[in-house]
Amino acid sequence: MTDIGPESGTEPGPLLIIGGREDKTGDRVILRAIAERVQGRKLVLATVASRAPEGYFDAYEAAFAELGVTEIVELYVHERGDTLGGQMNHLFEDAAGIFFTGGDQLRISSQIAGTPIEAAVRAIHARGGLIAGTSAGAAAMSDTMLVRGSGSVSHRIGDLHMAPGLGLMPHIIIDQHFAERGRIGRLLGAVAQNPRVLGVGVDEDTAILVTGATFRVLGSGAVTVVDGSGVTHSNIAEARPERTLSMHDVRLHVLATGDGFDLALRRPLHRADD
Amino acid sequence: MTDIGPESGTEPGPLLIIGGREDKTGDRVILRAIAERVQGRKLVLATVASRAPEGYFDAYEAAFAELGVTEIVELYVHERGDTLGGQMNHLFEDAAGIFFTGGDQLRISSQIAGTPIEAAVRAIHARGGLIAGTSAGAAAMSDTMLVRGSGSVSHRIGDLHMAPGLGLMPHIIIDQHFAERGRIGRLLGAVAQNPRVLGVGVDEDTAILVTGATFRVLGSGAVTVVDGSGVTHSNIAEARPERTLSMHDVRLHVLATGDGFDLALRRPLHRADD
Repeated sequence: MTDIGPESGTEPGPLLIIGGREDKTGDRVILRAIAERVQGRKLVLATVASRAPEGYFDAYEAAFAELGVTEIVELYVHERGDTLGGQMNHLFEDAAGIFFTGGDQLRISSQIAGTPIEAAVRAIHARGGLIAGTSAGAAAMSDTMLVRGSGSVSHRIGDLHMAPGLGLMPHIIIDQHFAERGRIGRLLGAVAQNPRVLGVGVDEDTAILVTGATFRVLGSGAVTVVDGSGVTHSNIAEARPERTLSMHDVRLHVLATGDGFDLALRRPLHRADD
Repeated sequence: MTDIGPESGTEPGPLLIIGGREDKTGDRVILRAIAERVQGRKLVLATVASRAPEGYFDAYEAAFAELGVTEIVELYVHERGDTLGGQMNHLFEDAAGIFFTGGDQLRISSQIAGTPIEAAVRAIHARGGLIAGTSAGAAAMSDTMLVRGSGSVSHRIGDLHMAPGLGLMPHIIIDQHFAERGRIGRLLGAVAQNPRVLGVGVDEDTAILVTGATFRVLGSGAVTVVDGSGVTHSNIAEARPERTLSMHDVRLHVLATGDGFDLALRRPLHRADD
């Protein structure tokens, strides 16, 4: 299947990481960013995160049609075993991008990680294709993904469950529906566990478009970056699970549309810096 | 009324700033801190923040009785005019402390600021008495208090209403019910408006006990400190009101019980620092 292998000299494609509930009927700033990169070619819509994918595809098909994306195929995995022989990989032939919709990030990782489908996704990325994901589809892009943890409460040390993700976006941990579900506490908890990892909380109808080692913010909400590299103290390893997190000297950035971020330098890029 | 005037050589008393919904039936860590400072003397329970104060007094009277605080008098203001001649100031005679309960912080400021009651509160503080406040009673302690602003959403620039508070706690702005109502966005917005002001978000059943230029955290939740002194960019003054806040290089501290904070140096104090 050379048509999904990397082309020599091609840079990896962009990642579009969306916090969920992106506008599908108005200006569609985020879906438009997908359409601009797909440019009338084929988009794979992966509804694999959902236990009941009916309706997801139709809603996106209608939203994308008006943006010029008319060739859309659905990827859904009922049984992991159905994928292992590469039976579903024809879906990716000539695809310009793939878009993972919402649901449960553990369904994405458990159903496709380590299968020929994951290899096909990586190949699309490696040859310059777009990999987009919203909500669970966003969470699954990091090395380690947040699976469960309370919102609207300050972080309790034992209250966080993580799992290995697809690893398309290394060294960061994504949280989605970020402000809407009051998730700053759990993202701080995740960063406290390993402050080398950058925490990136993405609001609903908001996205980061990652190209190379920088990203830019799109959409109506904010992207909150939690940089724990300067943390001087936390109790994450010492205290009992029911204890509240203590964490000193976090660097925080709140980014809005037009702002960017240099992932290598861990520095925000204001629009004026461009 | 020399009995409520400052005594020479006395340091101002502590402030106890509570994020609301402090435990009233269990360990009562926070109410116990009040009881320890009142030491069996008179406590004024100011229910002035509430439009319907019935029940507040009874609940606290019962909770405090078991902690040895048996002399409690209620301060409620139906009409500001009833206070202006000092008619209610006998309530403060020999009081060891005052505790402002919850409701609307604008009721506290509009009903008692600039009246002989406020002067009596300041006098109790100046002579070493305890000033405590929960929820609205906490918010009212700062120079400028948050009155209204959305929770569980990243801050929109025009979405914040502030008003002058009692000013017992200068140079900080308090937000209460902090994690529970997802208020990090609005506190960041408040600090963006004037980064000299330190933002202090107090969770429910959590408090800061301020003595001199330091505070210590009590209770089950977290205290989030937003230090904007190093902010390198924000769009608070430029963007349209409906735009999302952008704010780079915020310093954030999450403090739990036992942690302290040096307000002059803007540095957290870990328990081991004591």
